[in-house]
Amino acid sequence: MTRSHRLQQALYERGYDAFVATQRANQLYFVPHAEPVSGLPPIPFLLLIADEAIVIPGAAFYYACRDQLSQCTVLKTEVGAPDAPQHLAMTLAARGLQRVAFDQLSPALAGFLQQQAPGITCVEEPLLGAELRRTKEPGELALMRTVAQISDLGMAAAYRAARPGVTNRDLAAEASYVMLKAGCEEVSLQVATGPGSAYMGTGNWVYDPWRKLQAGDMVLIDMGILYHGYLGDQTRTAIVGEGTPQQRELITTIQRCYRTTRDAMRPGARAADLYQITVDILQAKGWRQYFPHHISHGLGLGGDLPRVTASSPDVLQVGDTFSCEPGVYIPGIGGARFENMLYLSDTGIEELTHSPVDPVVGA
Amino acid sequence: MTRSHRLQQALYERGYDAFVATQRANQLYFVPHAEPVSGLPPIPFLLLIADEAIVIPGAAFYYACRDQLSQCTVLKTEVGAPDAPQHLAMTLAARGLQRVAFDQLSPALAGFLQQQAPGITCVEEPLLGAELRRTKEPGELALMRTVAQISDLGMAAAYRAARPGVTNRDLAAEASYVMLKAGCEEVSLQVATGPGSAYMGTGNWVYDPWRKLQAGDMVLIDMGILYHGYLGDQTRTAIVGEGTPQQRELITTIQRCYRTTRDAMRPGARAADLYQITVDILQAKGWRQYFPHHISHGLGLGGDLPRVTASSPDVLQVGDTFSCEPGVYIPGIGGARFENMLYLSDTGIEELTHSPVDPVVGA
Repeated sequence: MTRSHRLQQALYERGYDAFVATQRANQLYFVPHAEPVSGLPPIPFLLLIADEAIVIPGAAFYYACRDQLSQCTVLKTEVGAPDAPQHLAMTLAARGLQRVAFDQLSPALAGFLQQQAPGITCVEEPLLGAELRRTKEPGELALMRTVAQISDLGMAAAYRAARPGVTNRDLAAEASYVMLKAGCEEVSLQVATGPGSAYMGTGNWVYDPWRKLQAGDMVLIDMGILYHGYLGDQTRTAIVGEGTPQQRELITTIQRCYRTTRDAMRPGARAADLYQITVDILQAKGWRQYFPHHISHGLGLGGDLPRVTASSPDVLQVGDTFSCEPGVYIPGIGGARFENMLYLSDTGIEELTHSPVDPVVGA
Repeated sequence: MTRSHRLQQALYERGYDAFVATQRANQLYFVPHAEPVSGLPPIPFLLLIADEAIVIPGAAFYYACRDQLSQCTVLKTEVGAPDAPQHLAMTLAARGLQRVAFDQLSPALAGFLQQQAPGITCVEEPLLGAELRRTKEPGELALMRTVAQISDLGMAAAYRAARPGVTNRDLAAEASYVMLKAGCEEVSLQVATGPGSAYMGTGNWVYDPWRKLQAGDMVLIDMGILYHGYLGDQTRTAIVGEGTPQQRELITTIQRCYRTTRDAMRPGARAADLYQITVDILQAKGWRQYFPHHISHGLGLGGDLPRVTASSPDVLQVGDTFSCEPGVYIPGIGGARFENMLYLSDTGIEELTHSPVDPVVGA
């Protein structure tokens, strides 16, 4: 079945006439023929009715959509003309729709549509798109193998450059360069070294660009890249030189969390149980409180299933792609995270990431 | 007056007891001592009361905040403990506050606070922070000169690499490399060439990574980088080879729009009038409908004033920093944008960007 047919079947089963994709992941997945995928313009609304894809572009992107999306109906938007929500309301009404599912529906938009098109029931179905995107097609898996390879190149370049005196920005520059040259369209990465490694995911690209590596530093590098829209995600941690026994224990412990959790990742495995495996290992070390995040998230075009946290109801399925990424961040010792990309096939778990488990840092 | 004193005065004048900064720009500006600025952890709420700065971190970032923000009161947050909105409600109540201004207040948060701390009036003041950040301090101006210089380096590297057969990703890689080496903490850029140049700001980093430059291409490169949190923003457009008379006219026309608009940028100039200068030039060419965006935005830590659009009420002031960025995107011809960073001092307008107006593309 095509993506469109699967969508229509899901809508029919839930009693909807149409689906409005506002999130880029769903737009990329369901829009007919957007090549290159990185060129899909920002679209406020992609309206999917039976086999028809109706694009409502922002005024600045009308021409881009008209020229690039020849298999879609592209509504003409102009500066100063009705804006995208108005176009959407008019179109929903003109098509005689009764019940429409949205991947995201803000109270403001819901109120506006209620006012403009009062006969239509609009419902947020936040997981519908992610569920339909969950099981990866062969073409998608091929793209994800490639993005994992590009990520491996970047990680190798970063650690090859790492040695005392080299700055965080040097590592970021070397990794970014090779990954862009290898064809990805977007790079964001965290380079956190020394005490900064304990400040989990401080949310910026390079934690402290000017900081120079020194002996004894933890070197945590987390890379997120996009290749044809698909996320490549990987984290490694190493020590400059020998490090302390505690630092080495930190790294070997998260590697053990990774291996033990990974080995339990099979069809039917429950998210909460997987999460608990890492918690149990860390609890025994007295480090439970330093593990503040999920153990795994789905991989794909964005916002993917499954989600593996303490409270997630998800259960692993054949065809899933996801991360496995235990991490511990202890002030005064340092932070360590280990993350690979994984694919769950009917013969078991496969690691898409091939970087060495322990990257070598120069002396 | 210090930033804190100016904030307290503004709050007093408007009848507030405290300010809650949820937006990163306001947090970076008002938080005491966050060095490096790129290391400020994500903070749901920074509560500013008189001279006190109270940080409510997400549970994952408690230790980072505790260790890095020694001049702040950092509330202890833990995984599974009261979440950040609960901490905020408890703190607002415990401090006996009456009226609190927020830079952003979602209906959901407003409802929650109304329920948890019913005696307190919470009001969204979306421009208060941007107004207080508007006039640049000497230290800020120095950072913005540096970010403009780094942007110049990146633009030079990109165009130096440009020649037929080179891919868009090559240009992105060369520019990113030198800008990261020069110390910026984040790079995002648009490289749009050939027909893609007409698809204004398609929203992704590299429009089509694998596309090879060919003779006659327009080459549009828009760079946004961060240096100590400050945005560096610059756009250039060139042609590979001679190009057509229409393409050359496109480029000279936006350069004329830039110069004419820039020359009118003086204290007291009204946003709508400035916008109209570019509109008039384009109208005379029959190109009005291909100019879909603002002519200028403020520069700084994010969400800055002034905003220069057809409908903006803003008026330029001494001490403002902003872009000037006319752009025209015509399917079948190509797209061209020209953007510099500007500072309005009491002696007039100063260009912070020093890249050549017409970058040279190799043969």
